[in-house]
Amino acid sequence: MNKVKIAIIGYGNIGKFAVEAAQAAPDMEIAGIVRRASSVGKIEKELEGIKVVSNIDELGKVDVAVICGPSRSCPELAEPLLKKGICTVDSFDIHTQVWETLMKLDAAAKEGGAAAIISAGWDPGSDSVIRTLLLAMAPKGITYTNFGPGMSMGHSVVARSKDGVKNALSMTIPVGTGLHRRMVYVELEEGYTLEQVSAAIKADDYFAHDETHVIAVDSVDNVRDMGHGVLLERKGVSGKTQNQNFKFTMSINNPALTAQILIACARAVLKQKSGAYTLPEIAL
Amino acid sequence: MNKVKIAIIGYGNIGKFAVEAAQAAPDMEIAGIVRRASSVGKIEKELEGIKVVSNIDELGKVDVAVICGPSRSCPELAEPLLKKGICTVDSFDIHTQVWETLMKLDAAAKEGGAAAIISAGWDPGSDSVIRTLLLAMAPKGITYTNFGPGMSMGHSVVARSKDGVKNALSMTIPVGTGLHRRMVYVELEEGYTLEQVSAAIKADDYFAHDETHVIAVDSVDNVRDMGHGVLLERKGVSGKTQNQNFKFTMSINNPALTAQILIACARAVLKQKSGAYTLPEIAL
Repeated sequence: MNKVKIAIIGYGNIGKFAVEAAQAAPDMEIAGIVRRASSVGKIEKELEGIKVVSNIDELGKVDVAVICGPSRSCPELAEPLLKKGICTVDSFDIHTQVWETLMKLDAAAKEGGAAAIISAGWDPGSDSVIRTLLLAMAPKGITYTNFGPGMSMGHSVVARSKDGVKNALSMTIPVGTGLHRRMVYVELEEGYTLEQVSAAIKADDYFAHDETHVIAVDSVDNVRDMGHGVLLERKGVSGKTQNQNFKFTMSINNPALTAQILIACARAVLKQKSGAYTLPEIAL
Repeated sequence: MNKVKIAIIGYGNIGKFAVEAAQAAPDMEIAGIVRRASSVGKIEKELEGIKVVSNIDELGKVDVAVICGPSRSCPELAEPLLKKGICTVDSFDIHTQVWETLMKLDAAAKEGGAAAIISAGWDPGSDSVIRTLLLAMAPKGITYTNFGPGMSMGHSVVARSKDGVKNALSMTIPVGTGLHRRMVYVELEEGYTLEQVSAAIKADDYFAHDETHVIAVDSVDNVRDMGHGVLLERKGVSGKTQNQNFKFTMSINNPALTAQILIACARAVLKQKSGAYTLPEIAL
């Protein structure tokens, strides 16, 4: 059997679990890990025996690049790889920019004769698959997506990117009917006040639409838990029959699940025609 | 907009709800209903204005035939239509014969240049989509499918087909970890004993693998309720991370949901290449 040769791009939370998921898959082989040049030297113990480089070209033949960088950087990381003919999968999670990203990567993929699956985490991702399925099962009605309680990786990264923030953890708290509160725990850098940092976080588009509380803590590590959950609820109408009720819940390790879905998609992307796809657009 | 012209084949429980689901879909048009010649004369009130015929050729152009006959007859009803170039969707539910049926209808569909979606109810069907998705999300682990409490249309039809049974209702009772009890309520024909009928039902492959109780009642109609439910549970491993927990539950009108999924698939089947497919094989 020819194993699928994958490159892991980035070695943060998701990257670590992506390595584990690829190691657990009998049909996968890790060609190597691509990191910032400044990180290539310091190899973690668990990476012994795995190539770590700063440029994907040093890895030889790669079938699929699994993009594990911060969500915002996914499109720019994927685009040049697709143009080179390397398939990509990513878990881009900025819902409002999915269409634009899809179109951009679709063009790059067709230029390079490769395929991309974007937004292949759990939301957007597997939750999108379930929401689409429920829409077919009961076309009229409302689906509520209730997240958490749990850490949002995307929101935490954005909070951490603000001036004055040494470390941050953004917790998502469900308040019902698809509404959420953001509880953001920050370690402040010297010379910054909680007020400044709080204002910067609340002004970001990631946080601007939800009730957001920013709280200063001594150590973000001491309050971190990577468990997460979701409750998808739909009550709707099948044909002319009311009151059809559906619920999907899960309680999961967040980066482990995201990484697992990316690795499953690394297998699926090789079966697609040139172009970019979201999960509901491909056959399971 | 060119509406999708559909023919409803059979006018039992699912057929009735399929008419409603097609009427509720803005992009669908009912070309007509195909029934046994003996039923064509007696038109129900709700069918006024809809063509009812005994041969599909009398309906003119039909894009998709929605097979609403008893599950066992689905393959033989679909095959000649596919050979004529008419797409079909059915909710064939004999799990052990899905592959064989798929291969048979695939050949017929390719011969006629049409496409078929088979087993497009909720189980097999939408539940299969969710089970496949959970397998990608946590490749190691066990999924339990717990049905009910609710009426099984397939089992009721089989019980009703036995000599001496005037009418029958088979209820599925979940007993945990994917095991079920069958409670079969029968109206006996004169000259038959409960023992005879019970033996015939229990010997059928539909019932032979489950704990089955057959109970005589005066009126099956008085105990009938078309509500049903399911609980799909998976606890598994994403990568190397244990204890990932997933649950899907629904509480639904059974034939209404089956019919709605068939109608959604009547739309999807027109986008497929020639051949036969199950739900997990097509993009949502």
